[in-house]
Amino acid sequence: MSEAGVYKAAHKQYAATPPMGWNSWDCYGASVTEEEVLGNARYMAEHLKPFGWEYVVVDIQWYEPGAHSSAYRPFVPLEMDGYSRLIPAANRFPSSAGGKGFKPLADSIHGMGLKFGIHIMRGIPRQAVHANTPVLGTDRRAREIASNNICPWNSDMYGINPAAEGAQAYYDSLFRLYAEWEVDFVKVDDIAASRLYHIHHREIEMIRTAIDRCGRPMVLSLSPGAAPLEYGGLLTTNANMWRMTDDFWDLWPLLKDMFGRCEQWYPFVGGGSWPDCDMLPLGHIGLRSVDGGASDRQTRFTREEQRTMMTLWSIFRSPLMFGGELRDNDAWTLSLLTNEEVLAVHRDGRDARPLYRREDRAVWVARAPDGGIYAAFFNLGDEPAEVSAELAELGLAGAREVRDLWERRSLGQVSVLRFMLPPHSSRLVKLEPEG
Amino acid sequence: MSEAGVYKAAHKQYAATPPMGWNSWDCYGASVTEEEVLGNARYMAEHLKPFGWEYVVVDIQWYEPGAHSSAYRPFVPLEMDGYSRLIPAANRFPSSAGGKGFKPLADSIHGMGLKFGIHIMRGIPRQAVHANTPVLGTDRRAREIASNNICPWNSDMYGINPAAEGAQAYYDSLFRLYAEWEVDFVKVDDIAASRLYHIHHREIEMIRTAIDRCGRPMVLSLSPGAAPLEYGGLLTTNANMWRMTDDFWDLWPLLKDMFGRCEQWYPFVGGGSWPDCDMLPLGHIGLRSVDGGASDRQTRFTREEQRTMMTLWSIFRSPLMFGGELRDNDAWTLSLLTNEEVLAVHRDGRDARPLYRREDRAVWVARAPDGGIYAAFFNLGDEPAEVSAELAELGLAGAREVRDLWERRSLGQVSVLRFMLPPHSSRLVKLEPEG
Amino acid sequence: MSEAGVYKAAHKQYAATPPMGWNSWDCYGASVTEEEVLGNARYMAEHLKPFGWEYVVVDIQWYEPGAHSSAYRPFVPLEMDGYSRLIPAANRFPSSAGGKGFKPLADSIHGMGLKFGIHIMRGIPRQAVHANTPVLGTDRRAREIASNNICPWNSDMYGINPAAEGAQAYYDSLFRLYAEWEVDFVKVDDIAASRLYHIHHREIEMIRTAIDRCGRPMVLSLSPGAAPLEYGGLLTTNANMWRMTDDFWDLWPLLKDMFGRCEQWYPFVGGGSWPDCDMLPLGHIGLRSVDGGASDRQTRFTREEQRTMMTLWSIFRSPLMFGGELRDNDAWTLSLLTNEEVLAVHRDGRDARPLYRREDRAVWVARAPDGGIYAAFFNLGDEPAEVSAELAELGLAGAREVRDLWERRSLGQVSVLRFMLPPHSSRLVKLEPEG
Amino acid sequence: MSEAGVYKAAHKQYAATPPMGWNSWDCYGASVTEEEVLGNARYMAEHLKPFGWEYVVVDIQWYEPGAHSSAYRPFVPLEMDGYSRLIPAANRFPSSAGGKGFKPLADSIHGMGLKFGIHIMRGIPRQAVHANTPVLGTDRRAREIASNNICPWNSDMYGINPAAEGAQAYYDSLFRLYAEWEVDFVKVDDIAASRLYHIHHREIEMIRTAIDRCGRPMVLSLSPGAAPLEYGGLLTTNANMWRMTDDFWDLWPLLKDMFGRCEQWYPFVGGGSWPDCDMLPLGHIGLRSVDGGASDRQTRFTREEQRTMMTLWSIFRSPLMFGGELRDNDAWTLSLLTNEEVLAVHRDGRDARPLYRREDRAVWVARAPDGGIYAAFFNLGDEPAEVSAELAELGLAGAREVRDLWERRSLGQVSVLRFMLPPHSSRLVKLEPEG
Repeated sequence: MSEAGVYKAAHKQYAATPPMGWNSWDCYGASVTEEEVLGNARYMAEHLKPFGWEYVVVDIQWYEPGAHSSAYRPFVPLEMDGYSRLIPAANRFPSSAGGKGFKPLADSIHGMGLKFGIHIMRGIPRQAVHANTPVLGTDRRAREIASNNICPWNSDMYGINPAAEGAQAYYDSLFRLYAEWEVDFVKVDDIAASRLYHIHHREIEMIRTAIDRCGRPMVLSLSPGAAPLEYGGLLTTNANMWRMTDDFWDLWPLLKDMFGRCEQWYPFVGGGSWPDCDMLPLGHIGLRSVDGGASDRQTRFTREEQRTMMTLWSIFRSPLMFGGELRDNDAWTLSLLTNEEVLAVHRDGRDARPLYRREDRAVWVARAPDGGIYAAFFNLGDEPAEVSAELAELGLAGAREVRDLWERRSLGQVSVLRFMLPPHSSRLVKLEPEG
Repeated sequence: MSEAGVYKAAHKQYAATPPMGWNSWDCYGASVTEEEVLGNARYMAEHLKPFGWEYVVVDIQWYEPGAHSSAYRPFVPLEMDGYSRLIPAANRFPSSAGGKGFKPLADSIHGMGLKFGIHIMRGIPRQAVHANTPVLGTDRRAREIASNNICPWNSDMYGINPAAEGAQAYYDSLFRLYAEWEVDFVKVDDIAASRLYHIHHREIEMIRTAIDRCGRPMVLSLSPGAAPLEYGGLLTTNANMWRMTDDFWDLWPLLKDMFGRCEQWYPFVGGGSWPDCDMLPLGHIGLRSVDGGASDRQTRFTREEQRTMMTLWSIFRSPLMFGGELRDNDAWTLSLLTNEEVLAVHRDGRDARPLYRREDRAVWVARAPDGGIYAAFFNLGDEPAEVSAELAELGLAGAREVRDLWERRSLGQVSVLRFMLPPHSSRLVKLEPEG
Repeated sequence: MSEAGVYKAAHKQYAATPPMGWNSWDCYGASVTEEEVLGNARYMAEHLKPFGWEYVVVDIQWYEPGAHSSAYRPFVPLEMDGYSRLIPAANRFPSSAGGKGFKPLADSIHGMGLKFGIHIMRGIPRQAVHANTPVLGTDRRAREIASNNICPWNSDMYGINPAAEGAQAYYDSLFRLYAEWEVDFVKVDDIAASRLYHIHHREIEMIRTAIDRCGRPMVLSLSPGAAPLEYGGLLTTNANMWRMTDDFWDLWPLLKDMFGRCEQWYPFVGGGSWPDCDMLPLGHIGLRSVDGGASDRQTRFTREEQRTMMTLWSIFRSPLMFGGELRDNDAWTLSLLTNEEVLAVHRDGRDARPLYRREDRAVWVARAPDGGIYAAFFNLGDEPAEVSAELAELGLAGAREVRDLWERRSLGQVSVLRFMLPPHSSRLVKLEPEG
Repeated sequence: MSEAGVYKAAHKQYAATPPMGWNSWDCYGASVTEEEVLGNARYMAEHLKPFGWEYVVVDIQWYEPGAHSSAYRPFVPLEMDGYSRLIPAANRFPSSAGGKGFKPLADSIHGMGLKFGIHIMRGIPRQAVHANTPVLGTDRRAREIASNNICPWNSDMYGINPAAEGAQAYYDSLFRLYAEWEVDFVKVDDIAASRLYHIHHREIEMIRTAIDRCGRPMVLSLSPGAAPLEYGGLLTTNANMWRMTDDFWDLWPLLKDMFGRCEQWYPFVGGGSWPDCDMLPLGHIGLRSVDGGASDRQTRFTREEQRTMMTLWSIFRSPLMFGGELRDNDAWTLSLLTNEEVLAVHRDGRDARPLYRREDRAVWVARAPDGGIYAAFFNLGDEPAEVSAELAELGLAGAREVRDLWERRSLGQVSVLRFMLPPHSSRLVKLEPEG
């Protein structure tokens, strides 16, 4: 529980609306370089910042000098300081050389008016445990605070034993370092849904405390999913966002499946807490991917599916973290990120919920701040289908002026919303408040 | 989805605070009589009404003339009207004779300033399906709206097929009858967690619609549990209360187990929606029980356990439905129901949540309306234990005036809350707002 | 446990090799008629009997006069005798009229040198319970031996309460009737893997006892699957065959999935007990099917897949029950059923087991009675693949003469078995004993 | 699959009857010394060898110099040779000094006419992976054959990647070393039911191959349990014994629970393969135990429970591995191990199976080689109960001469076996063959 107290949750203000930004994973896997980060940041500053996009996040393995693809290299040495803390690999992040860490890169990004984020793995480096290196702020050493648990998909870390003296000091030392670097956003991995050990809720609480103590606001994002629903209260109390699924990729079954997850998690949306549908695998992705069939490519989602994804993420108010190489965006892709009417649903919608789900037809609704109603219609089937809702079901009498938000045009006065939708497609509308 | 619309939930007002009342199940099983109901109502009117207790609920099998214990009699005939609707057995509820239903009994209870509730099973009587009897308001008959699913623990009903024409008409006809009877509270069973078929969410929605259409406010209570957490949103939208567990009885393991359930469900408490810890098996219970070892008895909970139960139910804001024969209450039992300081926590507390749970020690907190903090300390272990919290953990600096609510006395200025608690016991305090 | 005693299992002799026959379900669903049964029997007698095919089995709903497709009609009346026992619908089975039951049809089939089987559902008809009709051989009536459990996919029956007096008498009365009819094979359904209640192992034991008492050998087949592996011993003791899966149809994923099931169940094969891969949906099937996309059709399996199925069923020694309308067989389909070299593997193979399974490549082996080795090679993937085994892995030194059993030709002297197999295809060979 | 071929399973001969012996775990945990091993061996040679007891097994951590109790010490250094293989800690096993390994200890034990066994953990030492040490017989090093998986309860090892070149060479090098030491029995741990990763079936196959290649017969025992039933075939093919449960201790609920496990596994008993009920926690155990409440003690089983355990293990034919400090045996404990009539059931019984299990009453039967029937009667309840069987149920007519095997006395001619049994007690009898 945070030092700030159970009912003083300053950190909820760090993400008053769902975070929007870019993350290096979908395009560069474990291997992104400083130059690539800066290139995407510049694109964001120029093209996306006016629409609310602001975070630039360096994902996993920035401390691994030999990383060159989406793959992890088991048991290899990592860059580490004298206190068991990982530091950027200077060959990949030249500005970090000489012990400067991510501070110079953060400065550059802040200079563009953007915010800077990093990814970390739960725990302490295995190499620290084997060498039994010191931990800052305690006389306990790595072996004494480590726990005999690991991440199943990455061999870099041991877990932290929450009952060990020195455990909190270790996490405090990490986040003080990140505060020195002026980090704004931390994505902690292998923590919300460890494949092997369920959720690591005590480490989440330690990290919450460490951020509260570090002296700098940082958005806390927890991965991977599916975070367990029965910890919804704890996640809401401690984090700003957490994953509802395992890694999301550009495959229709994963997108279709997300609807069921949103139906479970919507009561937890809002107030600085954001169940997370995961990154947007749009545009040019997988540039150095070596995992199975999905290599360097344009997103495999059709345009209909891309809109369906953006519509669900927006009305549900998931964080929006773009996964592609921004500099390779075409006009269509850019248009998905810069539609102000759609982004207003994401920013200002309230009380989103499913109106119904009947097999492959789904309707979601949310309140607009002006008293209107946002409504999203989805055909999740493989055949065209009519998806409809009567205004009475929305608690509205008579007819209303309806606007198609993606198309930015009026549909006129309507009393029954009825759309014939192609497979996998959607429609996002606003019912205007009574005149 | 209710006709009143997704964002116009009038029914949330029917239970602005968690319902309080008496239910016949724990004392009389399937066999309560009109005389017993009236006797308990009179006791409530005299002794409990000033403290907020108001509902008098007749539980299961009131339509079964031969019911005489806690047991169900399989495949026996039930009292039914000409439209496939069950009606009170006149031998057990004499005032219902001549087709008057529960109206006379409801009138009597209303006359005491109390409210009247009944229990029903999901579905349509099996005997109606076998005789293929008519359904009011539709030309479909029983066999056409029935579904080939049953309750595993009671042989009286078939489920309703939500896709069948006439299905909604059937539920509408039921609740119109109950509105004629002037019922205020309906507990629907075999619906929130059918042992065989998970939750029957479509029947819940049909019942919501039927109540909205029936022309009378009725609190909707759903049983049994454990209602699935992944339907938390749907339950919140449609019902006023729903069970978090299977039947709760006077056994410590069940009470201890409730803490874990409350830790999962607390984000859903409030706003007219109340996750339900189930009835209070206190005082004289099991009067005609024939199930296993637990027959006619005083509650098997110790006094410490009784307070622990009342403390958890109160700070969590579960509905409070007394299960014993009220007229046999001793002074101790009555004192549990009439402590105004404790009941204020139940009525006025907000944002209750666990501060921590460490093995067998637990602390819950809630906000008081005056800016104070309610805090409950529990020792769930079998040995005495110290349970404590620092004010800093509650977001409070310095010391505060602390009051013991069960004992109704001040504990003075305190900066660390620290209680040595006997096994299974608890302490409920209020930290007064800063002077 | 059978009266014949735990170590005197006469019934194991009823199926010394895995049963082979025809079943009406895949082609006629719930609606087969006497004429259709006789037509298929005549085909079998003429074309298949010399190859070992002998059972002619009438599947579900023969007691339902209105059945006309693959669908069940809920809550409809059934033909029943005065002792709560279902009897053939005379409109569909004219020879049964006048209380003769299936005896005339059995006589006809016996006259062709074949054997006659029927399907029954576990339990007692619902209509018997509602009318509380008598049970032969006991003074208890239907309501007293019924259990409040049902089949989830068919509304005809209640379960039997094994603890009730009269329960065994009911099953005894059923099988004495079937013995009078001269039934040779009984497929009992809703018993090996009830969707709602797991396995009904006590009813299996009652049926075993009833057959042992009825005075006539009858093969006992249990459905549906997946029968639980942890009851493998009980199934082996009591039944001749039992299903390892839910209903099997002509879809590749179901066929691929069967390999994993065979890998679990092979230790239970032999000695009169046969884990059952289910019927062969080959040739002309679904003639009156109304369920979803799969209507009147030729099997959707490719020829490669058909051979793969026949190869697995044969080497594993599953029962072989043909599901198509035999009279519509083409030459290819007939060839699958009449290859003597393949059928020898099914009849005479011993100790079948997987040699390995590596993702989508699988090899099974079995012993031939002459000291040779049968080996089946499978490519379960969607791309061509080489599947191989060294003779050393089979415990054989040097090279052996190898014969392709489907093609009935020699492959010469071989030391490494290596086949390039198209997707979903297989090869079945025999390694001859050392010369 | 073994080189010896799928149908030439020489290793099945290594355990033609279920192994009997002593294991150091229950008495000495992770800390047994050479002197203690030899002391127990001498006791066995003197008192137990004539009854069939022969294996002396050194359990876990013999390579850990600092082990001094039942606890594991995380991340500590272990004794290792130059090829990534663990060797005995010379301070605990002085005869192993100078690179002689366990050969001298094995020689001593062989000199007593007994056999010698050791325990190993699946995988390769973590310290070998971190130091990337060589592996004998391959140019691959530790890091290249390790897999990123661990044992959850012991931090010593990484798993082996079965797809890595050099993986088989590593296991081959281990078992060649053990063959040089003249080991007769190897208990491999963390392999049959890893808590985190299910069964490691590929490592089981590699170990099978390594033993087949090592040039010395060794019994292969797999731990811990519960080994998954769906791998019953693979276990039978590759191992001599495998655990059906997690660690078994002297607590009645664990013993009661074993009956359900035996009911699942009995079809796999025999032919050199022995599902394993685990060690016998009898006599003086837990001498250096530091885990929870169970420290240095006499077994907590009552005498009735001890006989019940021995009776079940014997009729089921589980391996019998005594867990206590043999030298502290009292006369009662020794009597449990030296009853020739009971041990004959264990050695010579065939086709054991449950006759029935009705709640807390259970009867098991097996065939005796002379045509008699062994029968065991169990009262698993907490109240006295009559447990009975009619001879007819056993396939026997009339009456038989019956002998009580524990009491070694005749019960006379009996036609119904009926025993009034105290709680948790049992009776083991033999029905003699017809005269």
